[in-house]
Amino acid sequence: MDGLLVTHLPDVRYLSGFTGSNAALVLAGGRAVLFTDGRYTAQAKQEARGLRVVIAKKAAAIAASEWLAAAKVRRCGFDAGRTTVLEMKAMQKAIKIMPAKRRRGFFTAVGPLVAELRWVKDSDEIRKMRRAAALGCRLFEGVLKKIVPGVTEASVAAAMEFGARMGGAEAMSFETIVASAKRSAMPHGKASGAKLPGRGFVTLDFGVVLDGYCSDMTRTVHLGNALPREREVYDSVLEAQLNAVAAVRPGVTAGEVDEAARKVLRRAGLARYFSHSTGHGVGLEIHEGPRVAAKQKQVLQPGMVITIEPGAYLPGTFGVRIEDMVLVTARGAEVLTPSTKAWIEL
Amino acid sequence: MDGLLVTHLPDVRYLSGFTGSNAALVLAGGRAVLFTDGRYTAQAKQEARGLRVVIAKKAAAIAASEWLAAAKVRRCGFDAGRTTVLEMKAMQKAIKIMPAKRRRGFFTAVGPLVAELRWVKDSDEIRKMRRAAALGCRLFEGVLKKIVPGVTEASVAAAMEFGARMGGAEAMSFETIVASAKRSAMPHGKASGAKLPGRGFVTLDFGVVLDGYCSDMTRTVHLGNALPREREVYDSVLEAQLNAVAAVRPGVTAGEVDEAARKVLRRAGLARYFSHSTGHGVGLEIHEGPRVAAKQKQVLQPGMVITIEPGAYLPGTFGVRIEDMVLVTARGAEVLTPSTKAWIEL
Repeated sequence: MDGLLVTHLPDVRYLSGFTGSNAALVLAGGRAVLFTDGRYTAQAKQEARGLRVVIAKKAAAIAASEWLAAAKVRRCGFDAGRTTVLEMKAMQKAIKIMPAKRRRGFFTAVGPLVAELRWVKDSDEIRKMRRAAALGCRLFEGVLKKIVPGVTEASVAAAMEFGARMGGAEAMSFETIVASAKRSAMPHGKASGAKLPGRGFVTLDFGVVLDGYCSDMTRTVHLGNALPREREVYDSVLEAQLNAVAAVRPGVTAGEVDEAARKVLRRAGLARYFSHSTGHGVGLEIHEGPRVAAKQKQVLQPGMVITIEPGAYLPGTFGVRIEDMVLVTARGAEVLTPSTKAWIEL
Repeated sequence: MDGLLVTHLPDVRYLSGFTGSNAALVLAGGRAVLFTDGRYTAQAKQEARGLRVVIAKKAAAIAASEWLAAAKVRRCGFDAGRTTVLEMKAMQKAIKIMPAKRRRGFFTAVGPLVAELRWVKDSDEIRKMRRAAALGCRLFEGVLKKIVPGVTEASVAAAMEFGARMGGAEAMSFETIVASAKRSAMPHGKASGAKLPGRGFVTLDFGVVLDGYCSDMTRTVHLGNALPREREVYDSVLEAQLNAVAAVRPGVTAGEVDEAARKVLRRAGLARYFSHSTGHGVGLEIHEGPRVAAKQKQVLQPGMVITIEPGAYLPGTFGVRIEDMVLVTARGAEVLTPSTKAWIEL
């Protein structure tokens, strides 16, 4: 393989700096060429400094394919997980000028090469992720006074999202989750028109996008006096979370970190209520590798940023989740979201 | 073809009502079967009433493929524009239990069948789109008092997004554009930390998602006294926009509507500054068909909802865009975003 076609936009951004919505990057023979369209002429030159930029009137991947066919590239890798069957058909058509023999196997699936490069963050990226995570913490701490019985989940989300914008975020990294009372038993309870109860849990799971990088954190607080069972489940989830964070260091596998959380919940009889994996990588995208899930063999390396977010969801009753962003350091781990995880009763 | 595999999530939602993030819908032999995972057991039963729901431990499309292989389906359509090369490979593997002969050509590309069904909205959808559009108008009217020199574009966006949440929106339909002064010359100038000028244009392009349906509108207002050239360009863009809206009725092509806008700007010498198409369909997704662009042969039908959004962008100087959502009615068109388009000087 002597060429690589990069079409997944976060990968293009990572390699070139270009943030437009139509882009393809070709790496071949020591050259890097960025393809986009007329909307981005000025922006591409500014963001992708030093790169050759081709402004095309068609989809960037197709323009790139035509360029590849005319260049002296023999075989070109592409990301099969980010290219649709229809795009591939159009890409094949775009290289029709090549002899049939050369065309056969020209595009070769290579898997998420660039995405895996992105798992390990460099110091500039870590600086940006620290800032995104810190903004997340400020939002949580600021919104506590808004968490009162009778206001809607949506109004809590609104306050956090307003704060995110005012703090410089360009967007939220996913639809804000504010799940109160019985809704806290849904791992993905997006903020709704439901009113916060006089008594019960409120789970806040939210993130900002700051300078391109995503934050992600979850805290669960309690309105009014808790029942013993509520407190018990909270303490178990917190213990599971702390145990998993303590397990993070270079050389351990993602599966071992998952198990560190899972075994605490198993001991507490809550394993069956922990219905998702312990975490995931985060960076330019809210969900990146490595997956922090049962049996994952991926070995953690310094510079990876992962979430640690065990939870327990008692169907129809209540749920608790606690999540931090954790940076794998040379010797262990650093929590990037240091807001308190101690029991909060409002 | 006696089966159809639907995997694009807005299509699944349209056909089944299910809103989860992992879903596939199989239509075969008069049956409809929804595939999702354990996170959505309760939600799927509630949202996709009357449908058979299969909870799987793998990606929904793969679970659906295994089901198809076991069922008496001979050929199954799939959406080649929404299925990656990698997914197709896994789908082929999932039907390995079928004899090789039956497997060949089992999955047949059918194009965006369901997406095209969605272009024409029914009365329930139109009601929801009216509400989303009306909320958009209220946000614009409410934010005018916040548009003052020295505040950041981001703070204007923050105020609108806060209002959207408080008005019941579950999200914004795209990253809010607040582009002031020279930044208004960028068609996609997302709200930044730039401060609003004492004198110059501010373009607001934004939309909410309310009950699943997207709104989309743009207004351009002016801070301080305008230069004659600014007013001239504004008036031309407005005339182009009104002319295109007036051209909307059943039976005309999308290309004719585009031309109605373009010819006004051509006459004004602004055609080369109108660097995008006139509009697009909108609904469960912010960008749907039909494309309202040059030479598009698609004939407009009652129930389609399209945007009409001509603009003129003078590089490095300023830009103007004005956009409405327009419903194609039995006899003509109805503007769903009736906020004033008259010149506003703040």
